[in-house]
Amino acid sequence: MATHKLLLLPGDGIGPEVMGEVKRLIDWLNSAGIAKFETDTGLVGGSAYDAHKVSISEGDMAKALAADAIIFGAVGGPKWDAVPYEVRPEAGLLRLRKDLALFANLRPAVCYPALADASSLKREAVEGLDIVIVRELTGGVYFGEPKTITDLGNGQKRAIDTQVYDTYEIERIGRVAFELARKRKNKVTSMEKRNVMKSGVLWNEVMTQVHKREYPDVTLEHQLADSGGMMLVKWPKQFDVIVTDNLFGDMLSDIAAMLTGSLGMLPSASLGEIDVKIKKRKALYEPVHGSAPDIAGKGLANPIAMISSFGMALRYSFDMGDLADKVDAAIAAVLASGLRTADIKSEGTTAASTTQMGEAILKEL
Amino acid sequence: MATHKLLLLPGDGIGPEVMGEVKRLIDWLNSAGIAKFETDTGLVGGSAYDAHKVSISEGDMAKALAADAIIFGAVGGPKWDAVPYEVRPEAGLLRLRKDLALFANLRPAVCYPALADASSLKREAVEGLDIVIVRELTGGVYFGEPKTITDLGNGQKRAIDTQVYDTYEIERIGRVAFELARKRKNKVTSMEKRNVMKSGVLWNEVMTQVHKREYPDVTLEHQLADSGGMMLVKWPKQFDVIVTDNLFGDMLSDIAAMLTGSLGMLPSASLGEIDVKIKKRKALYEPVHGSAPDIAGKGLANPIAMISSFGMALRYSFDMGDLADKVDAAIAAVLASGLRTADIKSEGTTAASTTQMGEAILKEL
Ligand SMILES: CC(C)[C@H](C(=O)O)[C@@H](O)C(=O)O
Ligand SMILES: CC(C)[C@H](C(=O)O)[C@@H](O)C(=O)O
Repeated sequence: MATHKLLLLPGDGIGPEVMGEVKRLIDWLNSAGIAKFETDTGLVGGSAYDAHKVSISEGDMAKALAADAIIFGAVGGPKWDAVPYEVRPEAGLLRLRKDLALFANLRPAVCYPALADASSLKREAVEGLDIVIVRELTGGVYFGEPKTITDLGNGQKRAIDTQVYDTYEIERIGRVAFELARKRKNKVTSMEKRNVMKSGVLWNEVMTQVHKREYPDVTLEHQLADSGGMMLVKWPKQFDVIVTDNLFGDMLSDIAAMLTGSLGMLPSASLGEIDVKIKKRKALYEPVHGSAPDIAGKGLANPIAMISSFGMALRYSFDMGDLADKVDAAIAAVLASGLRTADIKSEGTTAASTTQMGEAILKEL
Repeated sequence: MATHKLLLLPGDGIGPEVMGEVKRLIDWLNSAGIAKFETDTGLVGGSAYDAHKVSISEGDMAKALAADAIIFGAVGGPKWDAVPYEVRPEAGLLRLRKDLALFANLRPAVCYPALADASSLKREAVEGLDIVIVRELTGGVYFGEPKTITDLGNGQKRAIDTQVYDTYEIERIGRVAFELARKRKNKVTSMEKRNVMKSGVLWNEVMTQVHKREYPDVTLEHQLADSGGMMLVKWPKQFDVIVTDNLFGDMLSDIAAMLTGSLGMLPSASLGEIDVKIKKRKALYEPVHGSAPDIAGKGLANPIAMISSFGMALRYSFDMGDLADKVDAAIAAVLASGLRTADIKSEGTTAASTTQMGEAILKEL
């Protein structure tokens, strides 16, 4: 049995708690002889800043580069609001994405039937919802230069951010979306603002070419990002795979996640290019939710998004699709049994702490 | 009685139809001696392109600069998808905003009680909703330079858009938001992505200063634009005034509009700085909805957003708040009577065409 090297980066806030439940699952998989994971742990975000005044240390970056997959908790919190921009908690996550070239961020927005009523949307609008947002993750306004604040004198400053996209960046994220659609409902909706942004014009053009050249069997639609956002709120089920740039993806995937009523349940995968020689790709898996500092350390956090992110690792990094299916089924079974953490608690269900939820899922497995 | 000069720019799609109902209202106000409006008409968007191969002619720009207010319909449609970027329909609107320095875009998102069920959100989430998005409209990524597509050779192109904000631009839009909040629930929520964008850092800093220096009596909160978007979907009533940049404002205001279930009902105002000498400001009023080419020319369009935008003109440009209140009341009364255009039709209500709706509102007045 191959040994897989995992780097666990719990991060801040509820990160360590939810990571604890993944650790429990990994330990069990190892001891039951189902898989062989070698785990190491590192610091990222505010906790890295507290320890070494950076958002991730060079040592941990080296571990990240050497790992087969990174399992990431969450970063940030008001405690670090005043730290310098360059070493703010988020910088650690952004550096991991960039230095590992994790350009493809897959964010499923799935409405768990047991939770359909937790959505602010009407049940009929979200019941059965199953879409994926494919977000470009290493380009655009997140990383483009110049990115500066200049003092102009007279009490005036000028801030500049730059959105940059090259053809190849759009092509490769397009391919990820089309490939994924082929395994799903075969439909891709590309969103940009071509009526205002030149990067939107190029995005639209390149998506259209990739589609025509390589994926004519998949349905491709284009929407402006603003009206796409509207449509997402109005009738999300019209979508299958949405592909969009880094900043629009940030906004739209958060909105899609909130629609489902299952924010504490949604995983994500950030993937690099497949290295054809070793048939491997760099990858980082993280829950869509944030570090929720207000509930940290209280046993209130929902570990499902984190466990489900580990499930995505099994599927996308280790070719253990069957085991990933079992993890998903265990989560569904525990929810069906009525167990709920505080964020998804409703009348007639049974309250569970972070640990109790993790243990119940493990028992189900 | 002072004469007010209006420039009507119906634009494309349903623009001319809904503008027709405003024209009817203006004619009545003039003939009843309630007000004195002098109207002129121009072309913008695709219709301007069809006539003179530009998105707005120099002649119409001159009229716009000379008018006391511009009443704008909507622009765009698939017919002009292939026209050059520089003369695409939207360019006309963007030029009006920029050349008239209409930096403050006010977009109320109000849920009409009679329409609460038309929202995809649950009634309790939107009933009574009344928020305003104050969007910066002449800066940011919409107008920043460089804004280019360059051919790099090897089949590669590079697209660049630039987000630029100066201190004074953030200050003046902040003031509009704080002033407005003082007349409302006294709360402003500023949204940016300071964890990723330098313009977000400056935005946050300047809003905080303006608040401290000039509006300490107003409550100011800061949210990241992605989680702000989430909160908007989860529980929109937590907001009063939201102030944000051009691109986030584009996304967030469309989402807020869709939440209300009243998209065809929502007006907007785009305002310039007040010229202290003549106590006047440049202004453009337009519905939030688009040109809806699919239903154009069929008498199906809802004229309420357009009429209500004219109501905002009465209020913000001509100091006729009482008359504006009457227009709002007439709209509410007609809705309460059960009359509905196709977009908001539900069981047990009476169908009305664009014209029938316009006439009914006028009769109510
Ligand atoms: C934490 C932050 C830098 C990050 C982003 O903006 O990408 C987060 O919002 C996300 O969506 O993963
Ligand atoms: C038509 C388009 C250029 C415009 C924008 O992006 O600002 C529209 O979406 C709006 O919100 O007014």
